[in-house]
Amino acid sequence: MTHRPGQLHLNAFLMSSGHHEASWRLPESDPSSVSTNIAFLQQLALTAERGRLDSIFFADGPAQGRDVGRRPSGTLEPTVVLAAIAAVTSRIGLIATASTTYNDPYNLARRFASVDHISGGRAGWNIVTTAFGEAARNFGLADQPSHRERYERAAEFLEVSLKLWDSWEADAEVGDKAAGVWGDSSKVHAIGHVGEHFSVAGALTTPRSPQGRPLLVQAGSSEDGKDFAAQYAEAVFTAQQTLADAQEFYADLKRRAVEWGRDPATVLVLPGIVPVIGATEAEAREKEDELDRLIKPEYARVELAKTLRVHPDDLPLDRELPADLPSEDEIEGAKSRYTLVVNLARREHLTVRQLIGRLGGGRGHRTFSGTAEQVADAIQDWYDHGAADGFNIMPAVLPSGLDDFVDQVVPILVDRGLFRTEYTGTTLREHYGLAVPENRWTAARTAEIAR
Amino acid sequence: MTHRPGQLHLNAFLMSSGHHEASWRLPESDPSSVSTNIAFLQQLALTAERGRLDSIFFADGPAQGRDVGRRPSGTLEPTVVLAAIAAVTSRIGLIATASTTYNDPYNLARRFASVDHISGGRAGWNIVTTAFGEAARNFGLADQPSHRERYERAAEFLEVSLKLWDSWEADAEVGDKAAGVWGDSSKVHAIGHVGEHFSVAGALTTPRSPQGRPLLVQAGSSEDGKDFAAQYAEAVFTAQQTLADAQEFYADLKRRAVEWGRDPATVLVLPGIVPVIGATEAEAREKEDELDRLIKPEYARVELAKTLRVHPDDLPLDRELPADLPSEDEIEGAKSRYTLVVNLARREHLTVRQLIGRLGGGRGHRTFSGTAEQVADAIQDWYDHGAADGFNIMPAVLPSGLDDFVDQVVPILVDRGLFRTEYTGTTLREHYGLAVPENRWTAARTAEIAR
Ligand SMILES: Cc1cc2nc3c(=O)[nH]c(=O)nc-3n(C[C@H](O)[C@H](O)[C@H](O)COP(=O)(O)O)c2cc1C
Ligand SMILES: Cc1cc2nc3c(=O)[nH]c(=O)nc-3n(C[C@H](O)[C@H](O)[C@H](O)COP(=O)(O)O)c2cc1C
Repeated sequence: MTHRPGQLHLNAFLMSSGHHEASWRLPESDPSSVSTNIAFLQQLALTAERGRLDSIFFADGPAQGRDVGRRPSGTLEPTVVLAAIAAVTSRIGLIATASTTYNDPYNLARRFASVDHISGGRAGWNIVTTAFGEAARNFGLADQPSHRERYERAAEFLEVSLKLWDSWEADAEVGDKAAGVWGDSSKVHAIGHVGEHFSVAGALTTPRSPQGRPLLVQAGSSEDGKDFAAQYAEAVFTAQQTLADAQEFYADLKRRAVEWGRDPATVLVLPGIVPVIGATEAEAREKEDELDRLIKPEYARVELAKTLRVHPDDLPLDRELPADLPSEDEIEGAKSRYTLVVNLARREHLTVRQLIGRLGGGRGHRTFSGTAEQVADAIQDWYDHGAADGFNIMPAVLPSGLDDFVDQVVPILVDRGLFRTEYTGTTLREHYGLAVPENRWTAARTAEIAR
Repeated sequence: MTHRPGQLHLNAFLMSSGHHEASWRLPESDPSSVSTNIAFLQQLALTAERGRLDSIFFADGPAQGRDVGRRPSGTLEPTVVLAAIAAVTSRIGLIATASTTYNDPYNLARRFASVDHISGGRAGWNIVTTAFGEAARNFGLADQPSHRERYERAAEFLEVSLKLWDSWEADAEVGDKAAGVWGDSSKVHAIGHVGEHFSVAGALTTPRSPQGRPLLVQAGSSEDGKDFAAQYAEAVFTAQQTLADAQEFYADLKRRAVEWGRDPATVLVLPGIVPVIGATEAEAREKEDELDRLIKPEYARVELAKTLRVHPDDLPLDRELPADLPSEDEIEGAKSRYTLVVNLARREHLTVRQLIGRLGGGRGHRTFSGTAEQVADAIQDWYDHGAADGFNIMPAVLPSGLDDFVDQVVPILVDRGLFRTEYTGTTLREHYGLAVPENRWTAARTAEIAR
């Protein structure tokens, strides 16, 4: 497998005190402000920009599900966070999660178009269907729609959004002061969408944004999720534990993209990795062990039981998982996560306590502790072997884990010719090597003229 | 009427190239970027902060209604705009409009809580019910809900939002690293709201924000609108043409607040004023005339006809309004605006052309051209005579109109002891002299302990 030089992509997935659930208990963490302190988040973004990373990313879900005892769990809504970060950065891409199940396309499409304007073309949307029932009960529903229904709604949500983002042609703003004509109304199009889930009549309030629309990112790995990604996504976040699984996922997704008539190079696959970096391998291991010792398994066991749909008492800490668990088909929540957790435990014969340790580090993502050189090797290995176009870097501890990655791992990747030495563009699409999509109306007019 | 010194409040209502509909045709305006250029908006906010104004404000509506030929009409979604402005300012209050008819309370409440965190306690919400049917058709409805229904939904929307903003007590974040307890789950409350329009089960995702909740602002002046304002609003924007009308509105609103059991001093009334400032009165008049000459009446007539529910042909430009117009009762859109427009035309015997000129300057708000001294007099006159607690400053032209106001009018108001010399607080509530509301759960616990 050969790559063009410098084409590896790196996204930093930022989460409060870090991805390890016990990270907030370390001395470097200020537990009272990690979840709501914008200066802390702006600083992390500047670090990522110093490392010339492609983008940063925030997860999101519209429900306070977790036990707040366990770890920092209050969050700010990510589109407003991105706007505040855009104001103090100039290059780093800015990706926010938003749910298609609990939003209206008109409101969300204009918010992302607005963030794209505010950031000068650096906005991305991680499209999720949201897999926890608590969210449904914050929006007047007794329970969440079925998995299938959520993805059907997501597809129509995307169709509406794409129409809205095309509703203003790029040259609709005329600004003819002498004639007193500000805009060309023939270039602002009412979309007239009437569908199963949505009816949306008008044009967006917001002129076409620098990237035409935000970068479309997706993060569900079920069958429906992969099909959705193959159809719409330009970057895909995924949790993969082994090279073989990651290769299979990678090939599968590219194949599906081809089936949708797309160039597979325009769908970038970014598996997660939770690096713990030390001056020596032993030091890195010791860092990771220290974090694992700080986990309180009681909290995690309750959540694991919820994922597996069993009672916490059925999960004695020093035994393996019970034999009779439901199959993925029976799961209406996060299907792919469920399968990943069960497979991991079975494959490695983990006790519940050990499984909790593994999930506590990266919630199902690949954890890796070692020297900067070893982390770079781990990244290059998957990249060279058809398992990834780039990585979702999920520091176990923040801010130090991101500093370590940027200051120690990035220079190695640059030296190896894998990663950029400078930003060559200013937009998120430019970082990922993706074109600004054509506006459907402008394209139709151009085709008309050509005939 | 006596006031405490320095207690006048000033909000700057920012709109693209200014409130005069022809402002974008002046040389100072860059018509291609006024609607989407965040640097332009950030600069205006910094100007307002230089003038130590209480706040800036953005209008909003989820529909592209207007003819884009007429004037800059593309807008960015204001909550993300505020977040981007928060990042480059430190004191100025930040008020965004959002509709209760076309949002979900869970999403909106957390977004405002997030902006309050991001800005260190400077967020305000201009609560509107949205009075144009185009919006309904972007959200799956054939037409807008009736005026009454919109306000009923708005009241329940507020009740849910208030519960959500109280769902985290201020001291819910514990951060006990030694014990491994991040939050006190007894201080994070599922709200369990079940009502006519909304069912919302959980707590907010977002810890209590610096102001407890955003400042609540309202801008509807119909009977239902005033009752809603009297019950919930802490500041009220209103369009009033004459001192007598403004005094009546002021007294009426304060009386209604008392009926709701509130201290009338906690409901601030801010009429709009569109100042055009010149070195001499003649120069100011000439500025205003130049602007009026740049209006193209064809656009405005179509909109006026829509407001009045007649055909544009029924509005010859050089005749007065037709005699047989509907009464306010029959209007399901913006009731108070309708009445204001009709009364203005009848009272002053304006032709359609003249009426369009008046509305083109301030869309029904009081326009005033004169020297800085005369503008200060106009402000003081209403302030001293029980018509206002402050003003909604709506510069006819931006950026120069705001510069003129800040550099020329504010110093006069300061000299007269009416306006602050320095910010004395850092939050929007402090600027407006309003307390941080008590958290209902904390209050109940305190009362419990006291017993
Ligand atoms: C890196 C990564 C980040 C994710 N972030 C979110 C998130 O912020 N919110 C969310 O609801 N789901 C998130 N997910 C989960 C999925 O997007 C999806 O909602 C869930 O897996 C259910 O889809 P599936 O059944 O197709 O897997 C994330 C997944 C991955 C791999
Ligand atoms: C200064 C001011 C600003 C307003 N801004 C908005 C706005 O941004 N969006 C909106 O839908 N209505 C806005 N309105 C209109 C009212 O809030 C309200 O929606 C409308 O007047 C209908 O309510 P009413 O019938 O009670 O008057 C504004 C009104 C005033 C006075």
